[in-house]
Amino acid sequence: MTDSLVAKIFKDHLRSGSFEPGEEVGLGIDQALLQDATGTMAALQFERMGVDRVQVPYAVQYVDHNVIQLDFKNPDDHLFLQAFAAKYGVHYSRPGNGICHYLHVERAARPGATLVGADSHTTSSGALGSIAIGAGGIDVALVMAGQPFELPVPQVVGVELTGRLSDWVTPKDVILELLRRRGVRGGKGYIFEFYGEGVETIDVTGRTTICNMIAELGATTGIFPSDERTREWLTAQQRPEDFVELAAEEGAEYDEHEHIALDELEPLIAMPHSPGNVVPVREVAGREVAQVCIGSSVNSGFEDLAIAAAVLRGERVHPGLVMTVTPGSRQILDALTRTGVYSDLVVAGARMLEPVCGPCVGMGQAPPSDSVSVRTFNRNFPGRSGTITDQVCLSSPPTAVATALKGVITDPRDLGEYPELPTPPAEPAVDDAQILAPAPLEEASGIEIPRGPNIKPPPEASELPEELTATVTIVVDDDVSTGDLAPDGVEVMSFRSNVPEIAEYTLRRFDPDYPAKAREMAPGYIVGGHNYGQGSSREHAALAPLQLGVRAVLAKSFARIHRRNLISQGILPLVFADESDYDRFEQGQSWTLSGLRERLEGDVRELPLRSGGEEVTLLAELSRRERDILLAGGVLRKLREGGTQSTQETAGSSTGRDEVGE
Amino acid sequence: MTDSLVAKIFKDHLRSGSFEPGEEVGLGIDQALLQDATGTMAALQFERMGVDRVQVPYAVQYVDHNVIQLDFKNPDDHLFLQAFAAKYGVHYSRPGNGICHYLHVERAARPGATLVGADSHTTSSGALGSIAIGAGGIDVALVMAGQPFELPVPQVVGVELTGRLSDWVTPKDVILELLRRRGVRGGKGYIFEFYGEGVETIDVTGRTTICNMIAELGATTGIFPSDERTREWLTAQQRPEDFVELAAEEGAEYDEHEHIALDELEPLIAMPHSPGNVVPVREVAGREVAQVCIGSSVNSGFEDLAIAAAVLRGERVHPGLVMTVTPGSRQILDALTRTGVYSDLVVAGARMLEPVCGPCVGMGQAPPSDSVSVRTFNRNFPGRSGTITDQVCLSSPPTAVATALKGVITDPRDLGEYPELPTPPAEPAVDDAQILAPAPLEEASGIEIPRGPNIKPPPEASELPEELTATVTIVVDDDVSTGDLAPDGVEVMSFRSNVPEIAEYTLRRFDPDYPAKAREMAPGYIVGGHNYGQGSSREHAALAPLQLGVRAVLAKSFARIHRRNLISQGILPLVFADESDYDRFEQGQSWTLSGLRERLEGDVRELPLRSGGEEVTLLAELSRRERDILLAGGVLRKLREGGTQSTQETAGSSTGRDEVGE
Repeated sequence: MTDSLVAKIFKDHLRSGSFEPGEEVGLGIDQALLQDATGTMAALQFERMGVDRVQVPYAVQYVDHNVIQLDFKNPDDHLFLQAFAAKYGVHYSRPGNGICHYLHVERAARPGATLVGADSHTTSSGALGSIAIGAGGIDVALVMAGQPFELPVPQVVGVELTGRLSDWVTPKDVILELLRRRGVRGGKGYIFEFYGEGVETIDVTGRTTICNMIAELGATTGIFPSDERTREWLTAQQRPEDFVELAAEEGAEYDEHEHIALDELEPLIAMPHSPGNVVPVREVAGREVAQVCIGSSVNSGFEDLAIAAAVLRGERVHPGLVMTVTPGSRQILDALTRTGVYSDLVVAGARMLEPVCGPCVGMGQAPPSDSVSVRTFNRNFPGRSGTITDQVCLSSPPTAVATALKGVITDPRDLGEYPELPTPPAEPAVDDAQILAPAPLEEASGIEIPRGPNIKPPPEASELPEELTATVTIVVDDDVSTGDLAPDGVEVMSFRSNVPEIAEYTLRRFDPDYPAKAREMAPGYIVGGHNYGQGSSREHAALAPLQLGVRAVLAKSFARIHRRNLISQGILPLVFADESDYDRFEQGQSWTLSGLRERLEGDVRELPLRSGGEEVTLLAELSRRERDILLAGGVLRKLREGGTQSTQETAGSSTGRDEVGE
Repeated sequence: MTDSLVAKIFKDHLRSGSFEPGEEVGLGIDQALLQDATGTMAALQFERMGVDRVQVPYAVQYVDHNVIQLDFKNPDDHLFLQAFAAKYGVHYSRPGNGICHYLHVERAARPGATLVGADSHTTSSGALGSIAIGAGGIDVALVMAGQPFELPVPQVVGVELTGRLSDWVTPKDVILELLRRRGVRGGKGYIFEFYGEGVETIDVTGRTTICNMIAELGATTGIFPSDERTREWLTAQQRPEDFVELAAEEGAEYDEHEHIALDELEPLIAMPHSPGNVVPVREVAGREVAQVCIGSSVNSGFEDLAIAAAVLRGERVHPGLVMTVTPGSRQILDALTRTGVYSDLVVAGARMLEPVCGPCVGMGQAPPSDSVSVRTFNRNFPGRSGTITDQVCLSSPPTAVATALKGVITDPRDLGEYPELPTPPAEPAVDDAQILAPAPLEEASGIEIPRGPNIKPPPEASELPEELTATVTIVVDDDVSTGDLAPDGVEVMSFRSNVPEIAEYTLRRFDPDYPAKAREMAPGYIVGGHNYGQGSSREHAALAPLQLGVRAVLAKSFARIHRRNLISQGILPLVFADESDYDRFEQGQSWTLSGLRERLEGDVRELPLRSGGEEVTLLAELSRRERDILLAGGVLRKLREGGTQSTQETAGSSTGRDEVGE
C-alpha cells in the first residue's frame, strides 16, 4: 500500500481503530488550540472533567477574537482564561499578540504533528504538514484531558499542483478555484492533500491561506508536505529542530483527484453570500465598492500586506472607499514596521488595525448599508460583517488592493507590471514573550480563577428518553450557518461565556422571536436543509438550542463540526431517509420518536417519526461511540459514567513527546 | 488698559457688544470644527438653516469617534458626512486620519484665530494661541451659517508658569495641579491664559495637553502665547506663514491669578471618578492595576509615546495588566514608525490601536470588572470606560508607563534616570491627503447626500407657553455629566444621528426606566444639583430630554456648554434662588410656572414656581438673546423668525480672511 501523507500521520497516531474506509479511529493528539471566543466554554467544561492538568503535550489559549471590549465581559473572560491556563498547564497568548492561526503556524505547528483546535480554521496549520482539525470546545477539552480524538477515517483528495502562479495570481486564487469547482459542501468527509511539482512554488504563508480556507469546503482539513519551504520557515522561526521532511509515498493512492494548473489560474472572487460563489474577477470588474479590508485570519502575512503597500506606494486609497489592514501577528507587525511596508500603508491612507481577528468575525469595520465590501477574509455569510444588508466579496490581496486604488472591483492584472516587494527582515521579532507559560505544578493548585458576572456554567442535556414527543420550533433552509445559530459580532460574542444569554440570539435572522417561541414549545426540533451548521466550530451553535430546549435536529445533511457538537451536547442529529419529507414539516407540529433508546442501543439505523397518522423515516447515521454519547445525554455525562477511556491511560500522543504532557 | 492675550483676540473679532465684564459679545469666527459623534446632528440642523455653503473661512469635519463600526450605522454616518462636507464647503478628514484635536493643532489652528468646535476639547487649539471654544452642534452650525458666536465676556485667569519641569514630571501634571487646586467647577466662566518664563519650557504638544484638559475645569478655554515654540511647530508643519508672535501686553491685567512653580510639581494622578480628584502619585502607589492606556485625545503626541517606548525598551509590559497605545494622528503614527518607537512598543507587548478616540470615549478597551485602569486620558466619569464598576485613574504618560512596567501604580521617579528620547523625524509625513477638500461650488448642488436608515431628523421644541405645568421626572445629584444624559460607548454613540433612539438611554444610570417614565410624565422637569451637564459638548444631552418631553431643568448650577445647548434647544435652564429648595423636589410632583412669556420678555429675573400652596423662586439668569431664543422655542425657530442677524451679513471673520468663506 502506498500511503498518502494523511495516511502516514494518521497511522502514526492511531490509538484505536484502523485506517480503513468506513472505520472510526481514535487519534493521539499532540497539540490543542483554544481561542477566547470558544475557550471559555471549553475551559468551563474541562473543569467538569476532574483533571488537574492538561494531558496533551502542548496546549495553548490564544486571545484574539473578543478583544474590542465594549464592557467588562471580554476583559473578565481574559482574566478567567489567563488564570485557567496558568493553573491547568496551558500556554496563554495575550491579547494583541496576534491571530491564533498565524501565531500557531509561526510558533507551534510542526510537520507530522496532530492538532485539534476550537476554531474551524485550525486547518491553517496544515501548511506545515500537521493534521490540524477544527472541533468544538468540548472536543478540545477532552483532548486536553487526555482523550484521543475520534473521527471517521476521512477520504483523501489528492490535489496535484503543477506549474507556477502568474504575476498577480496568488494562493488565495488556488483555494477560490477549489471552492469554485466543489462549492461549500464539496469537501465534507475529505482531507485535501496537496502534492506535485507546483507545491514548492508556494511558500508557507501561501499554504496557510489555502489550508485556512479548506474549511470553507466543509473539509476535515488540508495538508501540504513538509519540504524545503517548510525548513526555511521553521529556520526563520528559530525552531529548525521541529523540521522533518514529510511527503506522501511515491505513487500514493487517493480516494479522489483534483488537478490545478497554477499557471492557468486567473484572479477569482467569491461574490455574496457564500465562499463557494466564485467567479473570475474580470466578470464583475467595475462594480462600485465602499470598503476594502486586507488581512485578518487569512491573507495577513508579510507578503500579503507587502503587495498591498507596493501597489499603494506614492498613491492614495480611493476617496470613494475606506481601506483597513489587519496584520496577522505581532511578529508580522514588527516586520511590516521595519521594512517600511507599514509606513507606506499609513501614508496611503489605510486604516491600520491591531493584529486581532477584527472585521473578519464582525468585530468592527462593518460596511455601509447595501454596499459592496471586498475583503481578503474567508467567509461572507450574510450579515457576518455586522451590516445585515452587506454585500461582501472575498478576494486575494492583489485584487483587494487594486480595488482600493481604483474604487471599483478591479482585476489586478490591469495594474500592469508586478511591483518589486521588499524582503522581510532577516531577523524578525521572533519571540514568545507575549505567550505566558503555565505556572509550575507546585503553584498551580493555589491559583484562584476569577469569574466575572458574565461567566455562567453551560447547560447539560438530560439522558435520552425512550420516547421523545417534541414540537417543530422552526423550519430553515439549506446552509444555515453557526453564525445564524450563535451570531458573530461584538455584542453577541461578548456572551460566549454565557449560554443563557447567547441563546437569546439564536436564529433571529429567520425569526426575531425564535428564542421565546422555542422556549415555549420545548422540547423542540429544528428542521433544516442541507449542510446544516456550516461555518465555524463554535459549540454555542449547539449549546444555545440546547438551552432553548431543542433535543433533535432533523436535516437533509449536516456540516461536520456542528454535527459533532450536537452529539457532544446530547442533541440528536438525524437525517431524512427521503429528502422530500423535509416539505412535510411546519412550525408548531408535534412529532414523536418512539423506541429511541432501544434503537440507538441496538445499532438500528432507521427511526420512525410519527404525528397522527403520518410517518417519516429518519436515519441515525451514528457510530457506536456517538450512539453511546447520545444515550448518556452528551459526552460529559458519558465521561462521568466512565464509559469512555479514562484520561490518564490515554494521555499524550504516540510521537514520543508524551513526557511534555505530565 | 493693558490687554491680556484673550482681550486682544476678542477685541480683534468683535462683531457686537464690547469686551467689558458682564457684557455679552458676538465674536467673528475663523474656523469651525466638527467631529462625527456631534457632526451629523450639526449637519442635520445646518440643513434647516437654508444656507447653500458654509460662511466661515475654514470648516472641517473630522471622523474619529464612531469608527468601530459594529454595524451599518457608523459607516452610513461617514458617507452622509463626506457628502455633506463636499456639498456645503467643509473639509472632510477621513476615518483613521487621526483625532480631531491633534489634527487641528497640526494642520489648521493658528495664533490669533477664533475656533468654535462641536467637542468640549476643542480648547486644545489654545496651544497655538487660538481662542478655541467647545460648543453644541447647533452653535457650530450657526457659526458655519455665518452667525457670530455669542458669549458672555469671560473672566481671565492669568496662570504664571515659572521654572522648569523636573524629569518625569510633565505638562499633564501641570493641568492636574490646576484641577487639584480648583476642581471640576473651578474654571466656569473663565479663560485660563498662561504666561511667564516657564511657558517657553513647554512645547506645543505639552501645551495641547494643558489646553485640552482645561475643559475639565469647566472653563471656557485656555490659551498660550504664540512664541518661538509656536514658530518651530508651525515650521515643522510646513505652514510657517501661519505664524505671528502674540502675547499679552506687558503688565496685562487679569481677573484672577494662579502661579505654578513648574520645578516644584510632582507626578499627580486623578483618582476615580473625577478629573478633579487629584492626589500625588506617591500617595496611591502600590495599588494593583489591570490596565494601562496611553494616548487618545490627550497625551498621544510623539513625545508622550516616545517616553513610554523608552521606558519599555528591552522590558515587557507586566503580565498582570494589559497596555494599550493610541497615537493621536496619522502623522504621529508615521513618526513613531520611522523612529523605532512603534517597534519598541510592539515588542514590549503593548496593544497598538489606530489613531482614533477609542477607549477615551468608551469605544472599546473597557477594563475588567472592579479593576483599576490607569489612563492618560482626560475624563474618568463613572462607567465612561464601558465598565460600570470601573476604577479609572488619570495620569501622565510617565506615570502610566511606570505602572505598566511594575503592575502597580508607580511614581515614575522611582524608575531612576530619565531615558534619552529619540528625536522626531526631521520631515514627518505632513500632508493633508486624507483631508478631502470640498467640491467646487459648481459641482456642489449636484451632490446627493445619502441618508442611512439610522439618520433621523432631530426633535424641535415648541414655542414657550405662557404657563407651564409639568412633572418632576427625576431628581439627580451634583455633577451629572452629559454622559449620564447621552451615554458614551459604542452602542449608544452609534445612535448619535438618531435622537429618538438615543433618548432611550437617558439617565439610565440613575433609573433604568427613566426614558419610559419621562415620556409618560411629559411635559417634564429635571431637577439637578451643581454643575449639571458637566463634561462634553454633545447636544444630544439636551436633545434626548427634549425628545422625552422635558421642558425645563431646575438646578443649583449648570455647566457652561450644556446650559447653552439647553437654551438652543428651547429647554429652560433655571437655577434655585435658594439652593436648599432643591430638597423640596420629588419625582412625580407637579409644579407650575406662570406668566412665563411675560417675565422672559420683560427681563424679569425671578420666576415663581408653584405647587398647591408651595412656592419656590427660580432665577432666569439669561441674557436678552437667550430669552428670545427660549421664547421662540429654540435657536432654529428663532432663526426662522428672522430674529437673529441674517447669515450673509455677518459672514466671515474680522481677520481679513473673509474671502475664503465665500
